[in-house]
Amino acid sequence: MTISMYRASIPVFKRTLENLDAILDKAVKYCETRKIEPAVLLQGRLAPDMFNLIRQVQIATDVAKGCAARLAGQEPPKFDDDEATFADVKARIAKTIAFLGSFKPAQIDGSEDKDITLTVGGQTMKFNGVDYLFGFVTPNVYFHTTTAYAILRHNGLDVGKGDFLGNK
Amino acid sequence: MTISMYRASIPVFKRTLENLDAILDKAVKYCETRKIEPAVLLQGRLAPDMFNLIRQVQIATDVAKGCAARLAGQEPPKFDDDEATFADVKARIAKTIAFLGSFKPAQIDGSEDKDITLTVGGQTMKFNGVDYLFGFVTPNVYFHTTTAYAILRHNGLDVGKGDFLGNK
Repeated sequence: MTISMYRASIPVFKRTLENLDAILDKAVKYCETRKIEPAVLLQGRLAPDMFNLIRQVQIATDVAKGCAARLAGQEPPKFDDDEATFADVKARIAKTIAFLGSFKPAQIDGSEDKDITLTVGGQTMKFNGVDYLFGFVTPNVYFHTTTAYAILRHNGLDVGKGDFLGNK
Repeated sequence: MTISMYRASIPVFKRTLENLDAILDKAVKYCETRKIEPAVLLQGRLAPDMFNLIRQVQIATDVAKGCAARLAGQEPPKFDDDEATFADVKARIAKTIAFLGSFKPAQIDGSEDKDITLTVGGQTMKFNGVDYLFGFVTPNVYFHTTTAYAILRHNGLDVGKGDFLGNK
């Protein structure tokens, strides 16, 4: 086992999204069992000016797919941001996991010094590959997946950190 | 810039904790300005059976210091877990950042295949260095720092993702 740009990105984000997907499965069952309208959770947020659960998943997946594409020198695919149901949100995660899975280590490895330019909220950000991965992508993916978890947890879903880490 | 076990751990966790510390400074000012009892935020939690803000910081710092020590083949230092004020919590972060800063790349690099054995909640976990870093340490540090952020955000603190990422 060695450390590489591939090892530090693709399997990490695949696993994080797989774990989030399994948490969403529990949320679907929770809605069924407790007769909760799914939109209550999907539109749930932790503060009035924070993003809801759907948007948290959209951003986490965007950042992950953007990372794979950019480190490999491709244009990131665009998703429509029209998810409205748990099935939609899970489909977006599945699409992202499949996209991540389409990359071979050789496409990502060696991208440490690649120039990456992003426009976020009208602001241009420039990175090399390593700083993009560790200073932007990884914290963003975990920030939004943890917030998605926290929205569900705050709304009573019985999950724990083991679900988030994928070790139970 | 190259990728290495050091680059993927020490500067990443230092920066994450520095950003959290700056968020806590804003929380202190928020308490002063709005006449909020600091304990309300320090004991804040997002669900009755989730950890409060103090415990989130304790775990994030524990995982970060444990990572540096274990990858370098040292016994992790023990902290007392007796923090009760923002000053205490900030001191714990400062102590952790100083500890992380005491490691040289040569002490951490090459630890990809090091055998790491952890006991968490009475359960023994075995990893190699890379899987420990990417499958346990990094998600844990971000999980607990994001939850700390979310507790403060949920309680009205005016911060944004730029504070979490440290790019504002």
